[in-house]
Amino acid sequence: MPSTQPPAAPAVALDLSSDVTTLTAAICDIESVSQDEAPLADAIEAALRPLTHLEVVRDGNTVVARTSLGRDERVVLAGHIDTVPLTGVPNLPTRQADGVLWGRGTVDMKGGVAVMLRVAAEVSEPDRDLTFLFYECEEIDGRFNGLARLAETSPELLAADFAVLLEPTDGAIEGGCKGTLRVDVVTTGVAAHSARPWKGHNAIHDAGAVLGRLTAYEAETITVDGLDYHEALQAVGISGGIAGNVIPDRCTVTVNYRYAPDKDTEAAFAHVRQVFDGFDVTLADAADGARPGLHLPAAQAFVEALGVPVNAKEGWTDVARFTALGVPAVNFGPGDPNLAHMDDEACPVEQYVAAEAALLRWLG
Amino acid sequence: MPSTQPPAAPAVALDLSSDVTTLTAAICDIESVSQDEAPLADAIEAALRPLTHLEVVRDGNTVVARTSLGRDERVVLAGHIDTVPLTGVPNLPTRQADGVLWGRGTVDMKGGVAVMLRVAAEVSEPDRDLTFLFYECEEIDGRFNGLARLAETSPELLAADFAVLLEPTDGAIEGGCKGTLRVDVVTTGVAAHSARPWKGHNAIHDAGAVLGRLTAYEAETITVDGLDYHEALQAVGISGGIAGNVIPDRCTVTVNYRYAPDKDTEAAFAHVRQVFDGFDVTLADAADGARPGLHLPAAQAFVEALGVPVNAKEGWTDVARFTALGVPAVNFGPGDPNLAHMDDEACPVEQYVAAEAALLRWLG
Repeated sequence: MPSTQPPAAPAVALDLSSDVTTLTAAICDIESVSQDEAPLADAIEAALRPLTHLEVVRDGNTVVARTSLGRDERVVLAGHIDTVPLTGVPNLPTRQADGVLWGRGTVDMKGGVAVMLRVAAEVSEPDRDLTFLFYECEEIDGRFNGLARLAETSPELLAADFAVLLEPTDGAIEGGCKGTLRVDVVTTGVAAHSARPWKGHNAIHDAGAVLGRLTAYEAETITVDGLDYHEALQAVGISGGIAGNVIPDRCTVTVNYRYAPDKDTEAAFAHVRQVFDGFDVTLADAADGARPGLHLPAAQAFVEALGVPVNAKEGWTDVARFTALGVPAVNFGPGDPNLAHMDDEACPVEQYVAAEAALLRWLG
Repeated sequence: MPSTQPPAAPAVALDLSSDVTTLTAAICDIESVSQDEAPLADAIEAALRPLTHLEVVRDGNTVVARTSLGRDERVVLAGHIDTVPLTGVPNLPTRQADGVLWGRGTVDMKGGVAVMLRVAAEVSEPDRDLTFLFYECEEIDGRFNGLARLAETSPELLAADFAVLLEPTDGAIEGGCKGTLRVDVVTTGVAAHSARPWKGHNAIHDAGAVLGRLTAYEAETITVDGLDYHEALQAVGISGGIAGNVIPDRCTVTVNYRYAPDKDTEAAFAHVRQVFDGFDVTLADAADGARPGLHLPAAQAFVEALGVPVNAKEGWTDVARFTALGVPAVNFGPGDPNLAHMDDEACPVEQYVAAEAALLRWLG
C-alpha cells in the first residue's frame, strides 16, 4: 500500500535548487538499474518532502507528488527512474565535455526526471494542478512496472486530463505510439531420416513461403490525428530442426507487427492472419498503441505553449498505459532516442535546459 | 588394448545351439543401450570362447572372433550390439505373436547379431577365413564407435577381402552408401529496434532466399556401379532472432546434403557452395559414402550365392568405414530398416531364418 510516512535520510541528497544539468548528473550518478532503484527513490522522496505545496506518496520504489489547488485541470508529468544495466567498463559516473553530458541515463531518461524535479520545486502555484510520477522498472518485464502497478492498485493517483511522459524525444513532441503484437507462424511437416526425405515433408522448406510473404509485404504509413505512423511487419525469430539427420516436422517463425493506433489488437491480429492466410497463426502477446489525442484541448494547449515539432512516436511507450486509463498523453523529453541504451549514451546539456524552459513556459 | 584373457561368467548365458529366433530374443532381452553394452558383450564373449576354431579378442565392449585356416580369402561379418534407448513403457522383454518378434533391437540389429553367432557356431570349417566383429556404440556419436576405434588401433583385426554388415535391409543386399555433409548457410543483417526496422536489415527475411533455393532444388538420382542413389539436399535446422523487439542481424540455415558415392567430400561441398552461391556457406561436418563395389569378385560371389534383390543403400552406414580401410562391404540383414528406432520395432521371424540360411549357403 502507498505510504505517506517520512523516509530515513537518503544516502545521497539531491539539491533541487541546482541547475538542471547539475541535477541530471547527480541523478545519473545514483545508479538505478531496474529493480535496484531504492537509493534514487529515497533521494527523490527526501528532496520532495520539504516542498509544502506537494503531497508525497511512496509506493515501493515509485514516488508520487501532487498539488491540490482545486484547479480546473490536472496534468501528470511522468518518468521512470530506472536504467538499463551499465556497460562492462561502467559508463558512470557521468562526465561533461564540450557541452555534452555522457553516461548511463543521460538520455533514457534522467534528464527528464531532473526536469520534473526542477518543475516540482519551481512551480509552487501552477495554473493547473500537477501530479509528478517517478516510477520504477520501466526497462524490464511489464509486470514489474511501477506505473502499471499504480494503474492497477491506486488509479486515483494517476487521474488527470493530460499526461506528459518525459521519455527522450530529441526535444520534439511525440504523440501516441504504435501498438505491437507478436504471432507465431508455424509450419508442420512429417519427420523422416534426411537420407530418405521423400518419406517425410520438410517444415523448414515450407517456412520459405512465410518469409516470402514477409519480404513481399509493403507496410503502410497511416495518419492518425494528423501524425504519420510507419507500420512494420518483421520476423524477429525463427526456429526449426530436430537433429542433423532428421527432416524437421515443425518450424516456427515469430513475427512482430507494429501497427498504427487506428487499430486495436483484434483488428491488428485479423490483419496478420490475413497476411498469413493458410498458415497456422497464434497470438503470442500484444499491447495496443495510443492515439496521439492532439485534437484534445489540453494537448493543443501543450503543443501551442511549447512551439516545438510534433511527430508520431514509432516505438511503444508507457503513454499507452495512460491512454488505457482515459488520459491523453504525449512524449516530450531531452535526449536522442536513438542513443537510448547505447554504450555511448550522451546528451547536449542545452536539451535539458530547453526542456525545462518549455515546461515552465507551459505551466508557469 | 585388446585382451585375450577369459572373462568372468556372464550374468546371462547365450545358447548358440538354439534356433536363430530364440537366440535373437535372448540377445534383445539383454538390454544394451549405447554405452551400456557390457553385459551383452560379456555374454557374447563367453558364448564364443568355447568354440575352438575361433580366436577371440575383447576390446572394451567390442568382441572379435576369427578363424585362421589359411584360406585364400577372408570375409568379415560385422554388427553393432547396442540399441537406441527403450521406450517410456519399455519395449522389452521381447514378445512373439503371429510369427513376429516385437521389441527393441528386433530390427536394429540383434537379429543380425544372432545370425552372426549362429554362423560362428555352425561353420567350423568355412571355405573362406571368417572374422566376426561384434561392436559397441554405433547408435551414438562416432567417436565412441567400436568399429571406428578398432580401425584406428588394431586395423589388422579388420583386414579382409570383403565385409558384410548385418544392418537391417529387409533381406535384400544393399550396396555402398551415400555420403553426408552438413553446411551452415548464414545470412547477415543489421540489428535495429523492430518499431523502426528501416534502421536495420532483417537477416531472417534474407534466409527466405536460402529456403527458396532449397525448395527449387531438384535432387539427382545417380547410378554408381549399377545401383541408383537418390541424392537429397534438405534443411535440417534454422535459427535466428535476438529478442522479440529486435530486427535480427543473423540467421543460420543448417543444410544436409546426402550425395551419391561418385563424389567425395570436396566435390560434394563444391556442389553445395554452387547451389548457395552468393551466401556465406561453411562446412560443419562430413562423412564420405561408399561405392557398392559389386563388380569385385568377392562381392559378386556373395550376390550370386544369396540370390536376393540388390539395391543401393540410401543412408550412411558403417560400410563406409570398411571402404575407408580398403575392404569392399555391403549391408545385408533381417528387418525392415523403416522400423529401426521406432517404438513398435518388430520383425517377422522368417527373416531371421532366411538370413541365417543365406549366409550358411554362402559360407557352408
